[in-house]
Amino acid sequence: MLSKTKVRFIQSLQKKRVREEEQLYVIEGDKIIRETLMAGVPVKTLIARPEFLSSLSQALTGGIEEIIQAGFEELKTVSTLKTPHNAIAIVEIPVVKTDPDIILKNICPALDFIQDPGNLGTIIRSAAWFGIRDIVCSRNSVELYNPKVVQASMGAMLHVNVHYLDLRDFLGIARERNLPVYGTMTEGKSIYEQKTGDRGIILFGNESMGISDELKPFISERIMIPKFSNYNYGIDSLNISMAASIFFSEFSRKNKI
Amino acid sequence: MLSKTKVRFIQSLQKKRVREEEQLYVIEGDKIIRETLMAGVPVKTLIARPEFLSSLSQALTGGIEEIIQAGFEELKTVSTLKTPHNAIAIVEIPVVKTDPDIILKNICPALDFIQDPGNLGTIIRSAAWFGIRDIVCSRNSVELYNPKVVQASMGAMLHVNVHYLDLRDFLGIARERNLPVYGTMTEGKSIYEQKTGDRGIILFGNESMGISDELKPFISERIMIPKFSNYNYGIDSLNISMAASIFFSEFSRKNKI
Repeated sequence: MLSKTKVRFIQSLQKKRVREEEQLYVIEGDKIIRETLMAGVPVKTLIARPEFLSSLSQALTGGIEEIIQAGFEELKTVSTLKTPHNAIAIVEIPVVKTDPDIILKNICPALDFIQDPGNLGTIIRSAAWFGIRDIVCSRNSVELYNPKVVQASMGAMLHVNVHYLDLRDFLGIARERNLPVYGTMTEGKSIYEQKTGDRGIILFGNESMGISDELKPFISERIMIPKFSNYNYGIDSLNISMAASIFFSEFSRKNKI
Repeated sequence: MLSKTKVRFIQSLQKKRVREEEQLYVIEGDKIIRETLMAGVPVKTLIARPEFLSSLSQALTGGIEEIIQAGFEELKTVSTLKTPHNAIAIVEIPVVKTDPDIILKNICPALDFIQDPGNLGTIIRSAAWFGIRDIVCSRNSVELYNPKVVQASMGAMLHVNVHYLDLRDFLGIARERNLPVYGTMTEGKSIYEQKTGDRGIILFGNESMGISDELKPFISERIMIPKFSNYNYGIDSLNISMAASIFFSEFSRKNKI
């Protein structure tokens, strides 16, 4: 049974302030919870229907602090979804070590003021697919543990470290080390023609405003996805998460060749 | 002033049945409405704030059947968004001519039971970017004029014809003409290595179930986006709209070379 106090506590975790104070966030869904347990992430509370609980092995449930059996209606009170899944869990926010030396050993996307949680979640999912380990976000970007980011990332969050940094500092470090900073723009060199390596930063701007002026001086190469249509209205740009997927694909394809 | 009857009528257009009966749909937002007018699409009713109306030239407003000036609160009653834009319009559903001979002269994506409106909208946006003119959807796919599809396509709907067909028939025609049917799967030939031409169908399956069994026999080439990470959980697939963007990008890149 879910106590009223517990219900209120879980609901309060929908607020960023509470998540930060408690260093906890909420995940929903059978698959992502199973995968979170498999990944060894510390789960504080698991609330689930009996069928789901009995499907988990002892090895997976052993480390969970508190397990609460619940029915559909109870899950509904704590879910952010219209139709709740069979399980919801409160999970500790992991401590992410931020070492620019390690991050800059690989290709690293940097997101300047990304606002839409669905976009951030989707970019994380795509990054995980292409083996990208670290993503750096500007401090004013949407928070990683926003329920919509968690939902859209579909478990890929378990594989990608997301760091919130001052991008001027971070891009400055890349520049000091002579690493390329690829600025994704509507004008620049076609990504199909641009030479790329296995290190450097791919910088993405805000959904509507693009890369902020204060970061533009750090760009060493301007790159873009060529538009194959010539409509002069109705299509100014690709959605940032589609663009990111295409850039990740191109960097990966070229590095493999 | 918006009459109560008008408010109820616009609200009723949120239902698919009403849209089909009336052959009308609703678009929201300054930019998309301006572009719709520029594209010469017949607009039946335009409801907008005075500032927006005065920003439109006579050439654009000349063909509008009915123009209603409205304030923020009135727009809110008819909007599907939490914060309405400055304008909302009722637009005639265009008659789309479906001629497989014309469609099959180019690369054509076919979507088998696509369910999520955001995904369909995003795929249309990406298709428009890469100059794809036609998309074919199975009849059980989400409807094109669903407000969330319209919102996600961001005006790209003005450039892409979306046809709802029996995919067995359509793929059968492609097979008769010896055109390739590329089935996008989790296993198949890497899209980076697959030879592609400027004609054929790229077949995408449902978000969770993939390509339906009855369509698999029509596939002539199985293609996939290689996964560059080796995690064995948390990342089974790319989101369909990201995958579609990458496939469109690869087909375009190769055709240009």
